[in-house]
Amino acid sequence: MDAVDVIRTKRDGGELSAEQIDWVIDAYVRGVVADEQMAALAMAILFRGMTGPELSRWTDAMIRSGERMDWSQLDRPTTDKHSTGGVGDKITLPLAPTVAACGAAVPQLSGRGLGHTGGTLDKLESIPGWRASLSNAEMLAVLREAGAVICAAGEGLAPADRKLYALRDVTATVESIPLIASSIMSKKIAEGTGALVLDVKVGSGAFMKTREDARELAETMVSLGEAAGVRTVALLTDMSTPLGLTAGNAMEVRESVEVLAGGGPADVVELTVTLAREMLAACGMSGAKDPAEALRDGSAMDSWRRMIRAQGGDPSAPLPAAAAHEVFAASSSGVVTELDAYAVGVAAWRLGAGRARKEDPVQAGAGVELHKKVGDRVTAGEPLATLYTDEPARFHSALAELDSGYRISDSAGPVERALVLDRVSA
Amino acid sequence: MDAVDVIRTKRDGGELSAEQIDWVIDAYVRGVVADEQMAALAMAILFRGMTGPELSRWTDAMIRSGERMDWSQLDRPTTDKHSTGGVGDKITLPLAPTVAACGAAVPQLSGRGLGHTGGTLDKLESIPGWRASLSNAEMLAVLREAGAVICAAGEGLAPADRKLYALRDVTATVESIPLIASSIMSKKIAEGTGALVLDVKVGSGAFMKTREDARELAETMVSLGEAAGVRTVALLTDMSTPLGLTAGNAMEVRESVEVLAGGGPADVVELTVTLAREMLAACGMSGAKDPAEALRDGSAMDSWRRMIRAQGGDPSAPLPAAAAHEVFAASSSGVVTELDAYAVGVAAWRLGAGRARKEDPVQAGAGVELHKKVGDRVTAGEPLATLYTDEPARFHSALAELDSGYRISDSAGPVERALVLDRVSA
Repeated sequence: MDAVDVIRTKRDGGELSAEQIDWVIDAYVRGVVADEQMAALAMAILFRGMTGPELSRWTDAMIRSGERMDWSQLDRPTTDKHSTGGVGDKITLPLAPTVAACGAAVPQLSGRGLGHTGGTLDKLESIPGWRASLSNAEMLAVLREAGAVICAAGEGLAPADRKLYALRDVTATVESIPLIASSIMSKKIAEGTGALVLDVKVGSGAFMKTREDARELAETMVSLGEAAGVRTVALLTDMSTPLGLTAGNAMEVRESVEVLAGGGPADVVELTVTLAREMLAACGMSGAKDPAEALRDGSAMDSWRRMIRAQGGDPSAPLPAAAAHEVFAASSSGVVTELDAYAVGVAAWRLGAGRARKEDPVQAGAGVELHKKVGDRVTAGEPLATLYTDEPARFHSALAELDSGYRISDSAGPVERALVLDRVSA
Repeated sequence: MDAVDVIRTKRDGGELSAEQIDWVIDAYVRGVVADEQMAALAMAILFRGMTGPELSRWTDAMIRSGERMDWSQLDRPTTDKHSTGGVGDKITLPLAPTVAACGAAVPQLSGRGLGHTGGTLDKLESIPGWRASLSNAEMLAVLREAGAVICAAGEGLAPADRKLYALRDVTATVESIPLIASSIMSKKIAEGTGALVLDVKVGSGAFMKTREDARELAETMVSLGEAAGVRTVALLTDMSTPLGLTAGNAMEVRESVEVLAGGGPADVVELTVTLAREMLAACGMSGAKDPAEALRDGSAMDSWRRMIRAQGGDPSAPLPAAAAHEVFAASSSGVVTELDAYAVGVAAWRLGAGRARKEDPVQAGAGVELHKKVGDRVTAGEPLATLYTDEPARFHSALAELDSGYRISDSAGPVERALVLDRVSA
């Protein structure tokens, strides 16, 4: 087998054989296929796409490059959620313990933020003592103790994807639906969950800007999941404006705890409950306790506290706060007709909540707290948002971003947008 | 400037700016842009192409990555030829001294063979003592002595092209007309020739299989040459069947010397004279001695002997011969209607005349001598070709290749094909 032949096949619009796919993934992990060869292949895939059978095999080869976890010794079914990433998207935090409180197990391997989108592990790491790295045995112990675990993927999980993901990042080959779908699904299938709900974000703050692209990605991922024996459902949800009132690590934990306490912003509660119901249905537990009830009766909060504690964190400890803050005030009166998710995400990133490279540190206390969202009335001079950072020099560029994200109109209000736009299942 | 932005621009069908091109070529030579990034960019260029201004700038940036040679101290105009490569294409050997004998100077930087095509330097190296590596001062001395010099390009000449060429070879990004054209032309322009005749081969034994592709490549290269101030003309010539009766290093030198002695196969003589006239016309010397006369009166042979001697070779020394030979005989009687250039090229390669990787050695004596070509009558059992190698184990696969290349028919003869198919000038 020869890497140049494999690249040439895809470049010329052909279909890769199962043998070619198995060989190229394995040889890449072993260093026999060089980075420059995989980069050329990734670019050819970006232009030519992949057929269904090619993509299934590609995903399977990435899974087989490492271990596939197994939770069959648990006495309850497993179910998980994956979001394609957005601004203020802290849903995993209230969601996982809520689903656990309803009786399913949630073995979630999660990631860190990059660019304008936040990462679940970064958020949880703002809780004093909390550890993202767990062994498989520790994961099992946390699952038994709390019903849910959220941690980093170990080195042994889909190593081919880890290597390819880093390569795509520096070679402008990220934006390929087959490569995105196989990357996400190889990790989620290897994680060993029995059911999976995908939250595919659409809009300015999301990776997919249009519903068409989001739907194609969702359908591709649902097919891959089902082919691998994982019951998979996808929701397309709006990411044109941030979720909730916070974008920043510690402040998103605080907002999540409000939701677990039965309060919190309506959109965060709605999405948490909707996704939780889908997760329960997907693992055959539609008849279990309703997630809204678990948020009301304190059982979701109990699961949360057990989960945080089991991973070394102190759920009662005060969360880190930023050293400085600045208020962003409205320059005119009227109704907020637009609050752009991307602008808020970039503002939080500029303040230190996000990172440009995966080795950069993040500030726990930095971020944006929104006081006014779409549909709210404001008076000139009234605070629209408060910005937080440990480094005041960062305010200037963050304020400029935020300014570009708000639109205030004195005429008619905006069209109400639904949070859940579409649903894709097998 | 950021490599990912440059790749993304081309990937999405945009035009690279002059600044982006200058930066990416320079940063690649310096190692700031990694091989995997240039591989992704090359694949994006293969899919998207390049506009005229982009390609001119790209070629110019590759030239500026090294030195541009200067022959203005010579008392005669410079002119050169480049062939895109074929089977039995030894034309440079009789051509350069013939043009020198007619009064122009030929400063040719040449290359080695790869795959089924031979390389001029490999052929000349079968002459005892002959050296391919010369300093610029030595090149000038040989040019003054013999009027022609054929040698390897130094490290300082278009280093960006050297690095990119090696990368394209392993990433299936060779087959891109802008990348082929800029690679050839950056070296030829940097070589400092004032005029250039391109021999663009078309057919099974050539890189370009169709006349349309060959014409596009020719037009692209002519534009690049003219834009850089080099008077450039291209001929499209047939490479569906081998040139002359030999494919192999020492045996091609022997055939070239026959041509210089006023004999040799008609097709080799015709192409030598045609290209020589174009080279003289391109450098403003149409009124000079006719190349056919230089072959007849011994002056071309004198230039050859001076050139070989000036580069350390002994033009009178016996050439190396292979240790073993085997005759390939006709299995039926009739007329040869097809003799496929690619099959003959691969047979010679299998016998040891060519190489799979650029670091492989080649055998001086190995190759194929053709006794029958298209249009010739044969009787069953009559020799069609003789195969030569130092390693008899190689005969088997070479014979199989050759067998696939000959077609003998007892009915009508083939359509006569012209050697020169088309001509492209500014």
